[in-house]
Amino acid sequence: MAAFTAHTSAATTSHHHSPAGTAAILLQSRRRVYSPSRVSCSSAAADKSKTVVIGLAADSGCGKSTFVRRLAGVLGGGGGAASPARGNGNFPGSNTLVVGDAATVVCLDDYHSLDRAGRKARGLTALDPRANDFDLMYEQVRALKEGRAVDKPVYNHVTGRLDPPERVAPPKILVIEGLHPMYDERVRDLLDFSIYLDISDEVKFAWKIQRDMAERGHSLESIKASIDARKPDFEAYVDPQKQYADAVIEVLPTQLIPDEEEGKVLRVRLIMKEGVRHFAPVYLFDEGSTITWIPCGRKLSCSYPGIKFAYGFGAYYGHEVSVLEMDGQFDKLDELIYVETHLSNMSSRFYGEVTQQMLTHAGFPGSSNGTGLFQTILGLKIRDLYEQIVAERAAAVTADAINV
Amino acid sequence: MAAFTAHTSAATTSHHHSPAGTAAILLQSRRRVYSPSRVSCSSAAADKSKTVVIGLAADSGCGKSTFVRRLAGVLGGGGGAASPARGNGNFPGSNTLVVGDAATVVCLDDYHSLDRAGRKARGLTALDPRANDFDLMYEQVRALKEGRAVDKPVYNHVTGRLDPPERVAPPKILVIEGLHPMYDERVRDLLDFSIYLDISDEVKFAWKIQRDMAERGHSLESIKASIDARKPDFEAYVDPQKQYADAVIEVLPTQLIPDEEEGKVLRVRLIMKEGVRHFAPVYLFDEGSTITWIPCGRKLSCSYPGIKFAYGFGAYYGHEVSVLEMDGQFDKLDELIYVETHLSNMSSRFYGEVTQQMLTHAGFPGSSNGTGLFQTILGLKIRDLYEQIVAERAAAVTADAINV
Repeated sequence: MAAFTAHTSAATTSHHHSPAGTAAILLQSRRRVYSPSRVSCSSAAADKSKTVVIGLAADSGCGKSTFVRRLAGVLGGGGGAASPARGNGNFPGSNTLVVGDAATVVCLDDYHSLDRAGRKARGLTALDPRANDFDLMYEQVRALKEGRAVDKPVYNHVTGRLDPPERVAPPKILVIEGLHPMYDERVRDLLDFSIYLDISDEVKFAWKIQRDMAERGHSLESIKASIDARKPDFEAYVDPQKQYADAVIEVLPTQLIPDEEEGKVLRVRLIMKEGVRHFAPVYLFDEGSTITWIPCGRKLSCSYPGIKFAYGFGAYYGHEVSVLEMDGQFDKLDELIYVETHLSNMSSRFYGEVTQQMLTHAGFPGSSNGTGLFQTILGLKIRDLYEQIVAERAAAVTADAINV
Repeated sequence: MAAFTAHTSAATTSHHHSPAGTAAILLQSRRRVYSPSRVSCSSAAADKSKTVVIGLAADSGCGKSTFVRRLAGVLGGGGGAASPARGNGNFPGSNTLVVGDAATVVCLDDYHSLDRAGRKARGLTALDPRANDFDLMYEQVRALKEGRAVDKPVYNHVTGRLDPPERVAPPKILVIEGLHPMYDERVRDLLDFSIYLDISDEVKFAWKIQRDMAERGHSLESIKASIDARKPDFEAYVDPQKQYADAVIEVLPTQLIPDEEEGKVLRVRLIMKEGVRHFAPVYLFDEGSTITWIPCGRKLSCSYPGIKFAYGFGAYYGHEVSVLEMDGQFDKLDELIYVETHLSNMSSRFYGEVTQQMLTHAGFPGSSNGTGLFQTILGLKIRDLYEQIVAERAAAVTADAINV
């Protein structure tokens, strides 16, 4: 394994990052509540995790950016922060999204160690770990988590090359999104919560057709070839990360309409690991039981094919999980609020918050189905997780102050 | 149709009852709250229904007597009243059960107009309307409902003949149970609530084998022959009554075990008509939706094959109904109380009342499955219906007194 030395990209725009010690890793915004000398052993551990780190993994074109925009909506508290505009004004080519003072979303493409030409020369895809610098990723995520700013490389998606690095300050919540947030064990261990967006082949294909054929004029053959070319590396390096995820959003074709293959009506499953600190899985009616629920009926009318929920539990890669599933789509506001009312452990701050979030961002893809619903719920869960960690630290500080 | 004249059996033990006017229909326990002269038109209507009348229909050997014992347990308030001993001490051969001062259960076999020999002579089964005196049934149920005692015939199940009649005073709740409580339109119109126990052929056959072969030494062939012989009349005269029932308990083979044919594990459905006065159908989690629920899981462990509930709605003989279904059986107390906790509109007076009732009568057939559960629930529903009617009358009397 690579050495645990600190890497930065402060002095270089190349894909190679030399170890530079702590000089370029700026210390910034250290705790103000109490001085380091008063930190006891127990609270020192909590203190180290100043920034809460969230990993969001998925293949490209699988909804990471929509998820990030929904998360920004929840954390930013308003519609403005959910804009897809990049937050670092000084770096027009930046892939980083700054959500007010609440969160910073770093795109892991910035840790490509090989640029487009380099990958081509070596015959590697961007999914191959050899095209990515996990040492640097680890060092910089760790630095941010410990409260130190970093000079993060910037991968330019237009040129396919690395631009000059940008300064990233430690945020309250750091989201690292991309192909490999849980690939490297060291990075994985830094994550307070991890999410994997798992789009089934059928849906992925339908989405690619929609985007690349309809919007970009690609041929069906070229789309198929592109998917097939990515598949071996995807299955070797990206897909296995879902076993580490605390929550997986699985997107499948609907079961409500026989032979529906357009990927328009979706069956979406939210797989939630049990026993994760600060994360209480959402449930339907009776926690720990097995339920199906068609809310459409006497009280709620739905258009064809309706909405069907399922809730249950099981094992996922050897972990105990709860699973909430939504098949079908909302076509009216009252369906959405009705469903929200009957879900528990939502971590919402007020009645109808999920519905409000979904309405605010009604134009985002998936707003009428389980992808939008579950992304929004995970947004609330991340906010809740952050608040629990902060509260825990505050309690530890108080206890420490009493014990001095 | 037969004339609407009053019949009694006061002076005869034969199967023929002559019209005898009002002489033998004793006036008894008339209202004491206010005098007849102060009864207004509106409250006179309510006043007429002094006795609440419940119809309970089923084939013989289908659990009517167990149901009655469970109902007695609910209405009598204790275990003693649920004893199967007949209540009319003066008539040792009586088929009538008196539950304290709360209810009287009349067996409609007492209205057989042909005794066993008479049926044999005319080639009729007891299921044939021609073997039953619906004129007398109607007159006596009406008399009881209006507050007048009757001298009801008594059919002796041992001799197959009619014994001397017995005096029946108007109870708070009159339950008429037997083959034909909803057959005659006039009798049907007197019912405040009606129940049909619908045992599927497979289960009926399994039960008959268990009882008649194991306990009475009958042969399999004779059991089959007996069922086949009853079937035409059953289908012509008994089964069609279920279309009029406010609640049907349907007993089917389990779907949890493939090819289970012993009738030991049952799938039981409680079909509840919508829009019935004083009767709010029970529901699971979300009224008016469609749900399946396997309570066995993380919180509740069950032995094989577990328990599965279903709740939904639909049409039953053209009526809108809600349906609650239980497949499987309870084998532990905590399963029962867990299930009770998650059902709504149960009409119980205190937390756990259904469980308490089922435990008190744990020795009754069906105590571990949906038949016992739904019989108990309908017992609570009947008590609730009675109390609502009484409260409504009291309110009408008060309103009347104010308006005088």
